[in-house]
Amino acid sequence: MNIQKPKGTQDLLPGEVEKWQYVESKARELCQRFNYREIRTPIFEHTELFQRGVGETTDIVEKEMYTFLDKGNRSISLRPEGTAGVVRAYVENKLYGEPDVSKLYYIGPMFRYEQPQAGRYRQLHQFGVEAFGSADPSMDAEVIALGYTFYSEVGIKDVTVEINSVGNPAVRAVYREKIQQFFAPVKEKLCKDCQSRFDRNPMRILDCKIDQKYGEGAPTILEYLDEECSVHFQAVQDYLKAMSIPFRINPRLVRGLDYYTHTAFEYKAAGIGAIDTIGGGGRYNGLVGQIGGTDQPGVGLGLGLERTLLVLQAQGAEIPVARPLDVYLVGLGEQAEKELPRLLHELRQAGLKAEKDYLGRKIKAQMKSADRYQAHYVAILGEDELTRGEITVKTMATGEQQTVKLDEFAAIMRKLSE
Amino acid sequence: MNIQKPKGTQDLLPGEVEKWQYVESKARELCQRFNYREIRTPIFEHTELFQRGVGETTDIVEKEMYTFLDKGNRSISLRPEGTAGVVRAYVENKLYGEPDVSKLYYIGPMFRYEQPQAGRYRQLHQFGVEAFGSADPSMDAEVIALGYTFYSEVGIKDVTVEINSVGNPAVRAVYREKIQQFFAPVKEKLCKDCQSRFDRNPMRILDCKIDQKYGEGAPTILEYLDEECSVHFQAVQDYLKAMSIPFRINPRLVRGLDYYTHTAFEYKAAGIGAIDTIGGGGRYNGLVGQIGGTDQPGVGLGLGLERTLLVLQAQGAEIPVARPLDVYLVGLGEQAEKELPRLLHELRQAGLKAEKDYLGRKIKAQMKSADRYQAHYVAILGEDELTRGEITVKTMATGEQQTVKLDEFAAIMRKLSE
Repeated sequence: MNIQKPKGTQDLLPGEVEKWQYVESKARELCQRFNYREIRTPIFEHTELFQRGVGETTDIVEKEMYTFLDKGNRSISLRPEGTAGVVRAYVENKLYGEPDVSKLYYIGPMFRYEQPQAGRYRQLHQFGVEAFGSADPSMDAEVIALGYTFYSEVGIKDVTVEINSVGNPAVRAVYREKIQQFFAPVKEKLCKDCQSRFDRNPMRILDCKIDQKYGEGAPTILEYLDEECSVHFQAVQDYLKAMSIPFRINPRLVRGLDYYTHTAFEYKAAGIGAIDTIGGGGRYNGLVGQIGGTDQPGVGLGLGLERTLLVLQAQGAEIPVARPLDVYLVGLGEQAEKELPRLLHELRQAGLKAEKDYLGRKIKAQMKSADRYQAHYVAILGEDELTRGEITVKTMATGEQQTVKLDEFAAIMRKLSE
Repeated sequence: MNIQKPKGTQDLLPGEVEKWQYVESKARELCQRFNYREIRTPIFEHTELFQRGVGETTDIVEKEMYTFLDKGNRSISLRPEGTAGVVRAYVENKLYGEPDVSKLYYIGPMFRYEQPQAGRYRQLHQFGVEAFGSADPSMDAEVIALGYTFYSEVGIKDVTVEINSVGNPAVRAVYREKIQQFFAPVKEKLCKDCQSRFDRNPMRILDCKIDQKYGEGAPTILEYLDEECSVHFQAVQDYLKAMSIPFRINPRLVRGLDYYTHTAFEYKAAGIGAIDTIGGGGRYNGLVGQIGGTDQPGVGLGLGLERTLLVLQAQGAEIPVARPLDVYLVGLGEQAEKELPRLLHELRQAGLKAEKDYLGRKIKAQMKSADRYQAHYVAILGEDELTRGEITVKTMATGEQQTVKLDEFAAIMRKLSE
């Protein structure tokens, strides 16, 4: 019996993997310009980190984590998202002691035990940034702009930015009561999840797709913002306008997590049907303290790479594929074939992408292989040429042939391929 | 109480992470030239895969795996090495049906529950290649050359390649008996591990550091190679010589794993004390069949990135660090500061690496920050200049200053930074 990959996971094979490389290198290059530096935290963390940093009552932590005991009997979980680990590393490595703000990014696998469906995997991949140390609204705007620029530079069209303010803890306490008062009359009619949200996190009822009809006319948090929150929210909007980032205010945007303060935002894209949120984030001024550090403000975003690729594909965007071969080497006869590994190695050392046959195929099959690799040149070494110290180089686009000296071969091919 | 990272794991922070980026991008670029394409397999697999593909009696599978039941009650293990998953993916995705050989590479985290020590982590990182479909000795030589070129191009000096032939199954059966006969008289004196190896895998006794003294004068497998094995081994050597890859034959090199056939090899480097093996691999013509596919020959290598970086550091190699900032923006006065996010965004959209202050610091502190980022230019916007639609640009290397129009600022900075 053959062994299969675990349910909900993917093999990313040549042909597909180049799209990932493309999107990831765009993200890295973009982060460099925005002066974000990479951080890599472990694939697993102590389970307690996610309970504290994501929230014990969230679906992610309650239902979807890969949690197990290691051989030392510690409760360990595969990371279900990227922020908690980065915050933990920021605190543990005392990055808050550095003179400048910490602007960090991560790219990597996350793990959630969910029912697999189109674009949803148990091993998923996220790109995210976290900026710690500044409460300045220009930082919120920068993070929002970074995500928007990412989508635009990878080639996604018509991305909409939605923003909202979820206030500070004082504002939220007031609003929470207003929302409970609003939903109290229909509480029994709400879905099971929302009935439990009613006490724990009533703002999330506004997010529920099932109970949408009961939410109409609900008070919005924007009506309750205090001076500090209003000023901050207005400044974020002003900066976004100055940067020509199009956005709209969605007063119902709350994002699931308790730790958000002030700015919350999401990116939406057309082309993948009902699920149109492709990323999001917000400010989380309480989170660093909650995970155990000195209190430090923070703002971040996270976006799913599977979804990014899905939208790119749905929109028919052009994604670069593998680089064509510079040279395909063919040997005619046993003696000539034996020379190929050395010549191949010389070409590669000269910076060229070069290949030969490894299957003892006839020349016709080898030429087909050269075609599949889109080789710019095929170099053919026959026994006679070998004796003369020469090799024949064919330019595939034109059919032209030329003979070059074997000891100048790599240098000439390098020149031709410039 | 603060939460710490799990024992034996690392946070790779800015400053350190650039070294990883450097080594990985070297590996990717090299693989492209050698025509290897990336494959990404899941972080975890069904436990059975490693039992079958790595071997149930190996230390890795017996003692070191992170194995757990998922919520669907399947036994899952974090991958302890890279080959088994790639072979599984090769079989499951029927890559053997493609017309050309499959030349694949991977880079990523692996997991082993070992006692952490210098350079040894529970989450470790490997770069490896696997070439399936060809039994040609030029393929063995190519893989060996690829690893050697990798070390050399990242900047490691004095790498030694050791090679051996571990024969085919028939040769090994004969040799196994000879080895058992040789060790039988001292069997009771061997270490506990080797006593158990005596029946299961006696060739590995030659690898044991403790029982080295008993192995002196032991027969080597090279004395028992048959015609097929000798011809293959000689061809690999000839190709390596032709490629100018220095190597030496180590007839005691057996590598732990049962599945190796013909070529086995290791890379050794000076500079990190007793543990001098920094990578290795071999041919495994039986492995694909063992994991459940049609039988296909294969050859591969794997090397530890932690160890690569350790050697680079020990040898004092220069590793590129973060790219310096092109422009640091300073605003003098509230109005000017409010203009910075837009100007910053314009610079970044123009491809520049640009930064500003987010902490409301005085100009002196901002200039220090610009120094830390090694900014090539500092651009200062005062209230008067803002009114005139201008900005002052200071070249940090020379101290020269010039005034440029705000609406040409990004274009001019781009030109200056070319």
